[in-house]
Amino acid sequence: MADFHITDCIRKTKEGIPLTTEEIRSLVRGVTDNSIHKYQLSAWLMAVCLRGMTDRETIDLTLAMRDSGDVLSWDLDAPVTDKHSTGGIGDKTTLILAPIAAACGVYMPKMSGRGLGFTGGTIDKLESIPGFCTELTEQKFRETVSKVGFAVCRQTANLAPADKKLYALRDVTETVDSIPLICASIMSKKLATGTDHILLDVKVGSGAFMKNDANAKELARLMRIAAEHDHRSCTAVLTDMDRPLGFCVGNALEVQEAISVLAGDLDSVLGQFCITLAAELLTMAGVCDAASAAARAEQAIRSGEALERLRRMIEAQGGDPHVTEHPDLLKLSPCSRVLKAPADGYIAVMQSEEIGRASVLLGAGRMAADEEIDFGAGIRLHVTRGDAVRAGEPLMTMYAAKESQLDEAEAVLRSAVRITPDAPAPQPLIHSIEK
Amino acid sequence: MADFHITDCIRKTKEGIPLTTEEIRSLVRGVTDNSIHKYQLSAWLMAVCLRGMTDRETIDLTLAMRDSGDVLSWDLDAPVTDKHSTGGIGDKTTLILAPIAAACGVYMPKMSGRGLGFTGGTIDKLESIPGFCTELTEQKFRETVSKVGFAVCRQTANLAPADKKLYALRDVTETVDSIPLICASIMSKKLATGTDHILLDVKVGSGAFMKNDANAKELARLMRIAAEHDHRSCTAVLTDMDRPLGFCVGNALEVQEAISVLAGDLDSVLGQFCITLAAELLTMAGVCDAASAAARAEQAIRSGEALERLRRMIEAQGGDPHVTEHPDLLKLSPCSRVLKAPADGYIAVMQSEEIGRASVLLGAGRMAADEEIDFGAGIRLHVTRGDAVRAGEPLMTMYAAKESQLDEAEAVLRSAVRITPDAPAPQPLIHSIEK
Repeated sequence: MADFHITDCIRKTKEGIPLTTEEIRSLVRGVTDNSIHKYQLSAWLMAVCLRGMTDRETIDLTLAMRDSGDVLSWDLDAPVTDKHSTGGIGDKTTLILAPIAAACGVYMPKMSGRGLGFTGGTIDKLESIPGFCTELTEQKFRETVSKVGFAVCRQTANLAPADKKLYALRDVTETVDSIPLICASIMSKKLATGTDHILLDVKVGSGAFMKNDANAKELARLMRIAAEHDHRSCTAVLTDMDRPLGFCVGNALEVQEAISVLAGDLDSVLGQFCITLAAELLTMAGVCDAASAAARAEQAIRSGEALERLRRMIEAQGGDPHVTEHPDLLKLSPCSRVLKAPADGYIAVMQSEEIGRASVLLGAGRMAADEEIDFGAGIRLHVTRGDAVRAGEPLMTMYAAKESQLDEAEAVLRSAVRITPDAPAPQPLIHSIEK
Repeated sequence: MADFHITDCIRKTKEGIPLTTEEIRSLVRGVTDNSIHKYQLSAWLMAVCLRGMTDRETIDLTLAMRDSGDVLSWDLDAPVTDKHSTGGIGDKTTLILAPIAAACGVYMPKMSGRGLGFTGGTIDKLESIPGFCTELTEQKFRETVSKVGFAVCRQTANLAPADKKLYALRDVTETVDSIPLICASIMSKKLATGTDHILLDVKVGSGAFMKNDANAKELARLMRIAAEHDHRSCTAVLTDMDRPLGFCVGNALEVQEAISVLAGDLDSVLGQFCITLAAELLTMAGVCDAASAAARAEQAIRSGEALERLRRMIEAQGGDPHVTEHPDLLKLSPCSRVLKAPADGYIAVMQSEEIGRASVLLGAGRMAADEEIDFGAGIRLHVTRGDAVRAGEPLMTMYAAKESQLDEAEAVLRSAVRITPDAPAPQPLIHSIEK
C-alpha cells in the first residue's frame, strides 16, 4: 500500500497498460476512504472511457467495489435471486416479476435505487402507494423476504460505497458511458446483495444507456463473466427500448399497470414479456425446466398467488394493501389532457427517450437527486408502435399538477410520435437472451 | 456566459468535436477565477491528451491563456526579442545568447521559471551568483532592459495565471504530455511578455519532453502558428538532447561555462551552438542579414561587449559583477569525486536524462517546487560523445555537499555512459531550423 501512487494508475490506463489486481484494489480503497483526490480520479475515469480496460481489470474493479462495503449473505430454504434492469422508460417489470418468483417459491430480496433522469426507479413507483415505506432496517428487510418471498428497499449506504462515490464523480465529468465502468457499477451492487442467481435486463435503443446491440451485448458479456467469477449464475436478456415498455409511464400509473398484469392481463406485450423473464429466472434458479417454466409463471398469475404476494409485500412494508384490488386508490394528478392523432396511418415511431423527457416535464421524474416528484403524474399511452390510428383518435393521456406542465410536455410528446401511411416492419421486443 | 457548461466541453473534446472559440475563452476564464471544479478540468485535460485538439482550438487556448492576466508591451528604440528552451540538461544558452543580443543592439526582457525535475532553470543558475536578485519590480525590470539591453526576472504572478493553475493540475494528473497543451502553456507566457520576435529552442531526445523529431516538429509547428496568429515572428530550432549541452550541469558550474564562452571560448560545441542561435535571432529581428549574422554575433564576443553586458546585468540586479572576471567566485560544493573510464574506447552514449537525474541527487535540482537547491553542486564532464578515452582517464567530476550524495549519483552516472570499441556515428546537435 505504501507503494501505491494514483498517478501511476492514471499513466498506465492512459497508455493502455493494464493495472494489476493490487493496484485496482488500492484505487478502490482510496475511493472509499476519500484518500485519492477527485481531480486525479476523474482523470483516471476519463482515461478508462477513452482507452478501456481488459476483462480482468473490469472483474477486479467489480469485485473490489463489491468489497468496499457490506456483502450480504442469505440463509434461506430456496434459491435466492435478483433482477436488474439497466433502466428504461415505463419499465415496471420488477413489480410483476418479483411476485411471480415469490409465488413460485423463489426468493427475491430487491435493493433498488431512485430514478434519475428519464428512467424511473422501482423505489419511486412503490412510494406512490399510500403509506409504503422503502427505508427498511436490515432485520425488517430479511424478515419480509423470508415471510413474503420478496421485499423492496432502498440501497443501504454501506452497499458498495465506492460505487456511490465513483458514480457521483462520473455523473459530473462525462465519464458515465464506459462499458467496463457501467459493468463494475451494476455488478458490484448485485454481487454485494449476495444472491445466487441474477437476471439482467439490458435495454437497447434510444431510451437506454446502450444505444445499439453491439454495446448491449458487450455489457451483458462483461456482467456475466463478473457474475461467473463470483460463482453466481447470470442470464442477460437484451430488450428493445426504442419504445416504452407497456402503456404507462409514471409512478402511480405504472403500479396500476403492474397490478393489471398480475390480475390476469397476460395477453399484452408487457404481460408476455414478464412471463418470458420469469421463465428465464425460474429456469436459472433450477425450480423448473425450460419447457415448463413459462406455464409455471402463468399459473402463478392465474391462480392469483402472484398478486397476493404483492399485496402481502405492500402490507409488510406499511403500504395500503387495498391498492391491489382497487388500483384507483393510486391517485393520478388533477390536470389531464388527451393527445389525438393528427392524421390517419400507423404508429411508426413512439420514441421512448422523448416520452421519458416529457414524463419528467410532467413531474413524474427528477433531473437532480434532491428533487421532489409527483407520483400521480405521467402518461398513459392508448396505442403502441405498429397500431393503426385514425385522425382524431386518442394517442395518449397526460397527467400533471399544472396545466403549464401539460403544455411543455405536449410539445415534446408530439415530436415523439410519427405516423406513416404504411405499417412499420415489426420490431421484436427481445433482441437476444445470453445465458 | 450564462450558457457555459464545462460538462459540454468535456463531452465534446471526449467525442472529438472541436470547442468553439467562446467555449475555450469561457473555460479559461473559469480556470482563472477558480469557478470550474478541478475534477472537471482534469477530466477535460485527459480528454485533450487522448483525443487532441485542432490547430484553431490550440490557438484559441493559447490566446485565451495569454489574456488571463497582464499582457506587457514595450516601447523601446530597437527590436524586442525573447528566447525559450523547452528544457534540457546543461542548457545555459540564455546566459550567453541574451548578452550577445544586447551587445548587438537587440533587447531581451527575459521572464523565466525555476527549474523542476531534471532540467535546470535560468533563475536558479543566476541565483548562484552572490547577491543576485531575480525578484524585480516591473519598473526595475523595464529599467534594466532599457539600460543594459536585457534582464532576467522571475515570472510575475499575473503573467498568464491560467497557465499556472492548469499546469499545477496537469502535473498531478498525468496530463503534461499533450502537444497542444504544451504549446498553449509555453506560448501564452511568451505572448503575454509582449516581445516582437521569439526564438524557440525545442529539445529532442531522452533528456527532453519531446522524445522524437516528429513530436518536436509538431510542437514547433503549433508554437509558430500561435505566434504568427498574434503577429509575432518566430523561429524554432530543434536540437539534440540525447546528450547534455556543453560540459557543465549544475548552477554555479553552468554560469562558469557561460562566462567562459562569453570570454572567447567559441570553438566548443556550446560556443558554436550559441553563435548559430544568436545568428537566427539577429536575422529574425532584422538587425543583420543571414549572411553576416554569425560574424556579427562572434564579433560581439571577441570585442568583449557581450561579457560586459552580462557584467552590467549582474550588477544591475544586485549580484557580484566580479564573477565575470573571476568565475571561481562561484563556489562549488566541498565534496568532489572523479569518475574514471572503466575501459579504452569511444564515448558512444552520454545519456542526458540520467545525468540530469544524477545532478538532482547531487543537490543541483529539485523534484518539488519548495525544495532548496545547492548552487555549488553538479557535474563537470571532461569528455563528450564521440571522444576517444583510455581506461583510467577522468570522465567527469561530481560536486556535492555530502559524500553520500556522491555515492548515489555515481551509480546513476555509471549507467549514463557507454564506451564502445568503435567510434559512434556523428549525431548533429541541430536537427532542423523551422522558420
